[in-house]
Amino acid sequence: MTDFSALDRFLQNNRQSHLDELFELLRIASISADSTKGAEMAQAANWVEAKLASGGLKTKQIHGDGPPLVYAESAPVPGKPVVLIYGHYDVQPVDPLHLWDSPPFEPVLKDGNIVARGSTDDKGQMLTHVQSVLAWHQCGQKLPLQVKFLIEGQEENGSEVLEAKLAEITEQIACDVIVISDSSQYAKGQPAITYGLRGIAYYELRVHGPKADLHSGSFGGAVTNPALALARILTEMKTADGKIQLPGFYDSVVELVPSEREMWASMNFSDEVFAKQLGVDALTGEAGYTTLERRWARPTFDVHGLLGGYQGEGGKTIIPSWAAAKISFRLVPNQDPKTVSKQLQEFVHSHTPPGVRVEIVDLHGGRGVMVNPNSKFMRGAMQAVHEGFDAMPVLIREGGSIPIVAQMVEATKADVLLLGWGLDDDGAHSPNEKFCLEDYYRGIRASSRLWHYLAE
Amino acid sequence: MTDFSALDRFLQNNRQSHLDELFELLRIASISADSTKGAEMAQAANWVEAKLASGGLKTKQIHGDGPPLVYAESAPVPGKPVVLIYGHYDVQPVDPLHLWDSPPFEPVLKDGNIVARGSTDDKGQMLTHVQSVLAWHQCGQKLPLQVKFLIEGQEENGSEVLEAKLAEITEQIACDVIVISDSSQYAKGQPAITYGLRGIAYYELRVHGPKADLHSGSFGGAVTNPALALARILTEMKTADGKIQLPGFYDSVVELVPSEREMWASMNFSDEVFAKQLGVDALTGEAGYTTLERRWARPTFDVHGLLGGYQGEGGKTIIPSWAAAKISFRLVPNQDPKTVSKQLQEFVHSHTPPGVRVEIVDLHGGRGVMVNPNSKFMRGAMQAVHEGFDAMPVLIREGGSIPIVAQMVEATKADVLLLGWGLDDDGAHSPNEKFCLEDYYRGIRASSRLWHYLAE
Repeated sequence: MTDFSALDRFLQNNRQSHLDELFELLRIASISADSTKGAEMAQAANWVEAKLASGGLKTKQIHGDGPPLVYAESAPVPGKPVVLIYGHYDVQPVDPLHLWDSPPFEPVLKDGNIVARGSTDDKGQMLTHVQSVLAWHQCGQKLPLQVKFLIEGQEENGSEVLEAKLAEITEQIACDVIVISDSSQYAKGQPAITYGLRGIAYYELRVHGPKADLHSGSFGGAVTNPALALARILTEMKTADGKIQLPGFYDSVVELVPSEREMWASMNFSDEVFAKQLGVDALTGEAGYTTLERRWARPTFDVHGLLGGYQGEGGKTIIPSWAAAKISFRLVPNQDPKTVSKQLQEFVHSHTPPGVRVEIVDLHGGRGVMVNPNSKFMRGAMQAVHEGFDAMPVLIREGGSIPIVAQMVEATKADVLLLGWGLDDDGAHSPNEKFCLEDYYRGIRASSRLWHYLAE
Repeated sequence: MTDFSALDRFLQNNRQSHLDELFELLRIASISADSTKGAEMAQAANWVEAKLASGGLKTKQIHGDGPPLVYAESAPVPGKPVVLIYGHYDVQPVDPLHLWDSPPFEPVLKDGNIVARGSTDDKGQMLTHVQSVLAWHQCGQKLPLQVKFLIEGQEENGSEVLEAKLAEITEQIACDVIVISDSSQYAKGQPAITYGLRGIAYYELRVHGPKADLHSGSFGGAVTNPALALARILTEMKTADGKIQLPGFYDSVVELVPSEREMWASMNFSDEVFAKQLGVDALTGEAGYTTLERRWARPTFDVHGLLGGYQGEGGKTIIPSWAAAKISFRLVPNQDPKTVSKQLQEFVHSHTPPGVRVEIVDLHGGRGVMVNPNSKFMRGAMQAVHEGFDAMPVLIREGGSIPIVAQMVEATKADVLLLGWGLDDDGAHSPNEKFCLEDYYRGIRASSRLWHYLAE
């Protein structure tokens, strides 16, 4: 029989130590993209492992070509589900450093927020689950199910070690549901559970023309300009009203269902406020869909960068020998990046003007993730978040992609719960990254309930 | 009475000294774009001035904010035309230096060519006129007309001093015809006179979207992507069959006349050879025109560079805050760059998608030049080139632009003769720049005839 009041009392009495411990971890400059930070990566991994071990979990580190994975597990509970908590102890780089109001690895409290690199992404959010498991242990209560932790050190830099080790550890991390807190609430005071992520298919398109740059005076008008050919191909890839033109692109798209559309329509989202926030005078997108639908549940095509020709001051009169674009398609559940690659090949083949040659470089891809919003785990999570945050969570999707999640789901065949404790404006990859102090405590409380409700 | 045989004998006897003198000038590294070369610029200007003074011309240097203009004039000849010879003593930069087979400022003879930076552009070509005027002087023959020289040191870097001084010196350079040798023959063994140059209107288009780069996962699909908006505007600016879509763009275009089209059609130009030379599998362009017509006599639209967003290795998932393109229109005679600017404004205004703002930066412009191919000066030049090169020149136009020529023509109201002694493959702005040794001598001979025939 779970004694929530004992857990609540314990959490209340340990607010300061929970904060102190997060500060300890935040002081470690574990920037995975910085190859000079090997010692810090090891220090952060050791810190996380020691913390988990102090709660009676069996721990170990899994070593590969990069920062180690920290693995821990509590005792098995026969007949009950197994939960895998995924998170990461690495952080983003801190540039531009001069825009920080305080040093990124000297955490401070400011306006009710914990300000430090990694505060929300993901040390603070990840630690809520560690603290809640420790709280059960320290209150002398037996966890009602087995928890496993898999905390990696490369999430911000490609998850290569985890990807390489995934097949090897699949049995070890076998579970019924994966819990991840590495995202955001819907808004301040409005917690959310994310039940869908978009996938991605990312390419570089390179258009090759004449063998060398040509003088545009002597040759202009007689050859296909690679930059203009690129512009034409990109333009033809999406209609003005937002329909992507790759052949068969929408065939496997999971369409929105009326209940989702109703739920999101009721969310009090203001296009006007959103546009103002982004600094644009109008929102645009696929005809027939709202802004939230376009961001969360519809596939898109975007250009991320344009390259080629003269980029300096003033003018230089050349027909560039080549031009290129970084592009991607965001995919919705059921779309397969491999299929999109074939469709893109076909499209480019039939839309390349004479006089140029187009090369497609496949940079990376990952499928979207869709969670059953009506599963029993989801119901348990709703209840836990409700109690932890004193507000009923809304069900949202997220437009971004976490390719490693799709891979773990595929490997374990488990459900996944995306429980974001952060806020959209936390600046996860920006200067002055923050995490609301009370949300840290609410996250710990919600997590402490979660083990109970998932076991029910 | 002109004694051509005395002139020819003199030129024959002075081949070595004419070459030695060109080598002297080529050894001076007068790179106008390199701000550390002030001493070399002065040295080259002094060399040219001293050479002209040695032929009995009155000389002076005109100083402004940059390398000086060298001005010289022979005695007036009442009742005869005045000729202004324009040229330049500055040269292009030498990068990439490692592609040169010999040091760029140590001229050598190789396979019948003078190889050095500036050999064809424009020290070698310009010097043909200096040598021919000196030859008349040294043979004791009186020039049959007044020649004026205006040799600048910034042609490769914007002609700013000349542009700034043009109004001030207009009276001084008053003339009936301007002679310029800074271009090419039609082909090896086939001299040409250029009777038309295209103009240019050069811009940077900057498309501004959200106030900062956005995460393309969270926001993709809901805002107009500036790079894609740019691609669409560029694409809509020209149809797939090469028609420029600015409103009224073709209104003032001087159309080709049947005699020009016949003349060029007879020129034995091979699309196949040309395409192979450029390394493209097809030539393209405005429907209804041949390749020479497209290059010489039709306006065009080209993109010179694309900028914006992520340009590094691999992929970064942003919607860039802005994107830009360097673009230009090549104009044919009668088109005015100022009018084109207005047409572009109008076009962009009506083709900008919602959610972005387009800024047009006017970088530079210049009108085209058209010479009456049937004038008496042209007839005289045809005869002089014929005798100098032992071949009848063909009449061509050139796709490039020399904005300062249009300005000088406008200031002086003079005719202009574009007598190119170079070859298309001289590599004027490339490593291993060359100038055919025999064409240097032929150019001097043609020039020595020119003064006679222009005075007739």
